Amino acid sequence: MSYTASVHAKAIDLTKLTYAMTTAAGSGHPTSGASLAHLTTVLMYDHMRHDPAEPAHPASDRLVLSEGHAVPVVYAACADLGVHAVFDGRVRAMTRDDAMTLRQFDSPVDGHPNPVEGFPFFDAATGSLGQGLSVAAGIALAARLDGGDRRVFCLIGDGESREGQVWEAVDFIADQRLAAVCPIFNCNAFAQSDAVAAQQTAEVTVAKLKAVGYEVADIDGHDPEQIKQALDAHAANQAGAGGPFAIVARTAKGWGAASQQGNGHHGTAVKADALDALSAEFDATAAQLGATWTEGDLTIKPITHTPPAPAEPQPMPTLSGALEQFGKADVLGKGKWATRRAYGVALRALGLANGNVVALDADVQGSTGAADFAQDDRLAGRFVECRIAEQNMVSVAAGMGAAGRVAFASTFAKFFTRAYDQVEMAINSGLNFKLVGSHAGVTLGADGPSQMGMPDVAWFRAFTKVRRKDGHPAMYVLNPADAFAAYKLVGVMAAHDGPCYMRTMRPDTDVLYDDKTPFTLGGHELLAEGGDLLICASGYMVHQAHRALDALEDAGVSATLVDLYCLPFDRDAIAELAINAGGNVLTLEDNYVGGIGAAVCEALAERGVGAKVVQKFVTTTPKSALKPDEVIADQGLTVDDIVNTASTMLQLAST
Amino acid sequence: MSYTASVHAKAIDLTKLTYAMTTAAGSGHPTSGASLAHLTTVLMYDHMRHDPAEPAHPASDRLVLSEGHAVPVVYAACADLGVHAVFDGRVRAMTRDDAMTLRQFDSPVDGHPNPVEGFPFFDAATGSLGQGLSVAAGIALAARLDGGDRRVFCLIGDGESREGQVWEAVDFIADQRLAAVCPIFNCNAFAQSDAVAAQQTAEVTVAKLKAVGYEVADIDGHDPEQIKQALDAHAANQAGAGGPFAIVARTAKGWGAASQQGNGHHGTAVKADALDALSAEFDATAAQLGATWTEGDLTIKPITHTPPAPAEPQPMPTLSGALEQFGKADVLGKGKWATRRAYGVALRALGLANGNVVALDADVQGSTGAADFAQDDRLAGRFVECRIAEQNMVSVAAGMGAAGRVAFASTFAKFFTRAYDQVEMAINSGLNFKLVGSHAGVTLGADGPSQMGMPDVAWFRAFTKVRRKDGHPAMYVLNPADAFAAYKLVGVMAAHDGPCYMRTMRPDTDVLYDDKTPFTLGGHELLAEGGDLLICASGYMVHQAHRALDALEDAGVSATLVDLYCLPFDRDAIAELAINAGGNVLTLEDNYVGGIGAAVCEALAERGVGAKVVQKFVTTTPKSALKPDEVIADQGLTVDDIVNTASTMLQLAST
Repeated sequence: MSYTASVHAKAIDLTKLTYAMTTAAGSGHPTSGASLAHLTTVLMYDHMRHDPAEPAHPASDRLVLSEGHAVPVVYAACADLGVHAVFDGRVRAMTRDDAMTLRQFDSPVDGHPNPVEGFPFFDAATGSLGQGLSVAAGIALAARLDGGDRRVFCLIGDGESREGQVWEAVDFIADQRLAAVCPIFNCNAFAQSDAVAAQQTAEVTVAKLKAVGYEVADIDGHDPEQIKQALDAHAANQAGAGGPFAIVARTAKGWGAASQQGNGHHGTAVKADALDALSAEFDATAAQLGATWTEGDLTIKPITHTPPAPAEPQPMPTLSGALEQFGKADVLGKGKWATRRAYGVALRALGLANGNVVALDADVQGSTGAADFAQDDRLAGRFVECRIAEQNMVSVAAGMGAAGRVAFASTFAKFFTRAYDQVEMAINSGLNFKLVGSHAGVTLGADGPSQMGMPDVAWFRAFTKVRRKDGHPAMYVLNPADAFAAYKLVGVMAAHDGPCYMRTMRPDTDVLYDDKTPFTLGGHELLAEGGDLLICASGYMVHQAHRALDALEDAGVSATLVDLYCLPFDRDAIAELAINAGGNVLTLEDNYVGGIGAAVCEALAERGVGAKVVQKFVTTTPKSALKPDEVIADQGLTVDDIVNTASTMLQLAST
Repeated sequence: MSYTASVHAKAIDLTKLTYAMTTAAGSGHPTSGASLAHLTTVLMYDHMRHDPAEPAHPASDRLVLSEGHAVPVVYAACADLGVHAVFDGRVRAMTRDDAMTLRQFDSPVDGHPNPVEGFPFFDAATGSLGQGLSVAAGIALAARLDGGDRRVFCLIGDGESREGQVWEAVDFIADQRLAAVCPIFNCNAFAQSDAVAAQQTAEVTVAKLKAVGYEVADIDGHDPEQIKQALDAHAANQAGAGGPFAIVARTAKGWGAASQQGNGHHGTAVKADALDALSAEFDATAAQLGATWTEGDLTIKPITHTPPAPAEPQPMPTLSGALEQFGKADVLGKGKWATRRAYGVALRALGLANGNVVALDADVQGSTGAADFAQDDRLAGRFVECRIAEQNMVSVAAGMGAAGRVAFASTFAKFFTRAYDQVEMAINSGLNFKLVGSHAGVTLGADGPSQMGMPDVAWFRAFTKVRRKDGHPAMYVLNPADAFAAYKLVGVMAAHDGPCYMRTMRPDTDVLYDDKTPFTLGGHELLAEGGDLLICASGYMVHQAHRALDALEDAGVSATLVDLYCLPFDRDAIAELAINAGGNVLTLEDNYVGGIGAAVCEALAERGVGAKVVQKFVTTTPKSALKPDEVIADQGLTVDDIVNTASTMLQLAST
């Protein structure tokens, strides 16, 4: 009884503070927070093993608030418990006064969970809905690799559970037997616009979970004893049977005050002059429930596990060395090899050299190259088959990054599009992860546009001019032209603590480089030097340009050729090359506009270099063709097209 | 018995042709096709009401092949039935020889379903998995509005059903009681890399569907009678109870030939010299099944319904007229109003003027403005509440577009990111749809970066230089600065038969224009003319620039100000303005790089205009702040920043 009384008392206290905070901010979601008041209390004050003084402890239990808008109630608990965060540039215990800075510009108490602003209690930014359970799964997967037993609690809104990714994660957790994850569905019956649909009721949610094989605790989310028992049952299941287990909590949006309940109370702060009356409502609820806080009724549980030190990375062999080691030394014999194949070898070599590396793929490991990693017995335990669910894969990779792993996730470049929201949230979270998109550009050919990555460079480039707090761009975009470049860039990506995206191609392409060629973040490679024209190319188009050099020479054009394999690149260096080439610049890429061509135009325009830039890129939706070069020709990207364009630019007789 | 024998005979025939086609192409997915041989036969030869001579008949039943890679078997049926398509520039019945042109560059028989290449049997491009059921739902929704009873069959792979969007669509169909949709899960037990997971078995799929309330026919997908009965039951349900109904078909990947079954046969064409042996296997299967084709056993059913003529659009009133009409004439009284609010009024006025218009929203209608449409009793029947599932919403909008509706879908600009893959597939399909993303840019303020649309302009811009077959760009990106612009652009979007994306903002912004100001696709608005500097701005930054004009004048800078509200824009006109301003250009946008700044740099560089362009855009991940202008200031986008930047550019003493 005393336990119950104390939980009620704390729930009331946190709810009141939640309302005060959101009223002070003038916005926020107090009713959502109120529906979580008891769950938050039991988790953070009693059940979770965590340390308010070390909120990012690598072995502590974690709370992922997937319904990020409900965050004020968690902040309220953090303030009350003195969870450490960064205020005014220093780490200290959060106070209740700090809570009142919710959403203020100079406060880490951001509008939604946001670790990069100085709130390490959260592993990842949430608020774009439906992503948290996948992040939780990633954290739990990493913990399993560490041999730890940390548990990961994930609070998911019922309206939010309409997002398909939630069910990708539900499948994934069952598939991987991640008993450490405790999904808690907060069924408060209302979304923003209306009551939730019949498909998102507690009853149907229970049935959906059971269909996948979950054991489900269907509880009153405002009953302290029921919450405690369900969480204890989850712990027992984790230690025992280990199957998937979830909690469906029936709650009230706007719990504690009848005036705040029903439809129409989403995301609305209460006016300051209404707080007193509301407070009286809460006091009446408290009295009715016999809510009384007794010190000692609830106790935060200690962290028991000590995580192992991260594995010390060893140097990777060269590509030639790795091929020798893997019995594949002959693959380069024809002088052509696909960058996606080089990625596979690199991933395997990296995995063997660095125990922190994990690999994820979405049912296309044979196509992306990730199978090389998956099928090495020494690495198979660190391979995660995510099946055909890219959103979940990316958020799992982000979660593994949050737990200190270096995660490489691969699928077709096209299919990463499915997970751009997840990629952006992982970037916003400040996490470390690597994405490798295969079959990029038009050279996939036969399968047609539904499998080709076309606007990907434009999208990822948008993040290359976003500066992170460590000074790095929020994203490096890599587009290697040959196997040596692709191989080496995998090691370069692993060595960088931040997001990278690498494109690989389906067809075999000529070997241009060797084991000694350096590739760096921000680098480019100079393949030819001439005085008439600067050609900047990436990926497959480097080969087209390379093949055009002789014909250009014949046509009287002396060209500089740059393999612009990285965004961002050294803009000063490219500007200088452009000036040295008489200000004539041709850019070549086999994706839609917005990639290297745009970046080169910007670099020259911002320096006032009076250059003329002709961009060649893909200008129609591609279609199938048996041979990649038919699609290349259809897009005007042949060697002849390059020579003709250059001749026209320089007003020479065209070949 | 004869029915059964005929279905088996046709299934064998189509399977053989499927193998022949993929062998000729050297790639493709024959085993997936074989698993669909009986379902395809019963649907296309007997059950569906369709007309091979008019494959896009607006009242015919539809087949959406969500697992697009299985398409060769559908092509085989189309070839055998003489379904009309475009070969060599003219519409004619497809032949079996045509089928053998699978994946060839000059053939409409594309690698995956692709209506834009001349194959109107398909409504939408599929192949990026998990999207078809949502498209089917959109077609069915449109049919319901037309008063038709057309049915929409959707074939979904079991591996594919790991995609969360499939379950968003399952929920949606139940929510909307779309009994016309018949989801058919093709449970052939294998994905690409391996057997499907335990979560994707037929048993679990049945349980998942039942959890949502579906009636499920669990059948042998190679048993003609069971298929027929299940489809008849679907028809009876549609005419009767009208609840959600699905078929789970247990099939064999590589049906008909034991040598093609089991793991490792995904996406692999058979070598030409192995076809004869394979054919013998099929013949043996046929003999064993007593497969014999008897003309007349199977009959394509006639199309019974005549769809109504599309409603004739009436002119929209002006914004002032609409506000008057809706009793809101006072909202402009303060001289400020949010573009998202103007969108709501415009959508409502448009809906009243044009009966073809439908509106969709994802549980944020009060925030996006779509509530104005939803809450008008005359329009409520054309409003679709898609709840928190953006992927499904976009594909439903695409499906409604395929069925002749003009669909406007709205949510936060940020949340459309969740559906970029769906947007791209809808673009690739050549469909007509409009997306309106609210709370774009940083001026959302308090809610923080998880709710802000930041790289959206860069991504959508990638499509603005993709030329459709009708000559239009594949996407127009609109970023109106004030209420009049936003209002008028809604009408402009509706009048264009193609994809558009409009951004709206959260805060109220100054009124800059009036009812007479023209806004067009490709247009821009000149707000000031000066000789020293060209400022190109969009959205919120138009106001910042506008406010800076006086201070610029004081600082001795005579500036031209262009509201660059559309991508693409008239590049010649902008280049001329730049030249007239001495080649000094400042671009202003409150999103990440890759938007108007990049486009202006390109326009000048491609013309060799020796301009100097300073771009100002968002350069860090934004954070929460109580006031939008705090975030604007943090990003260096204040009026003072503009004046200082301009002064530095022109080497004047900075203010």
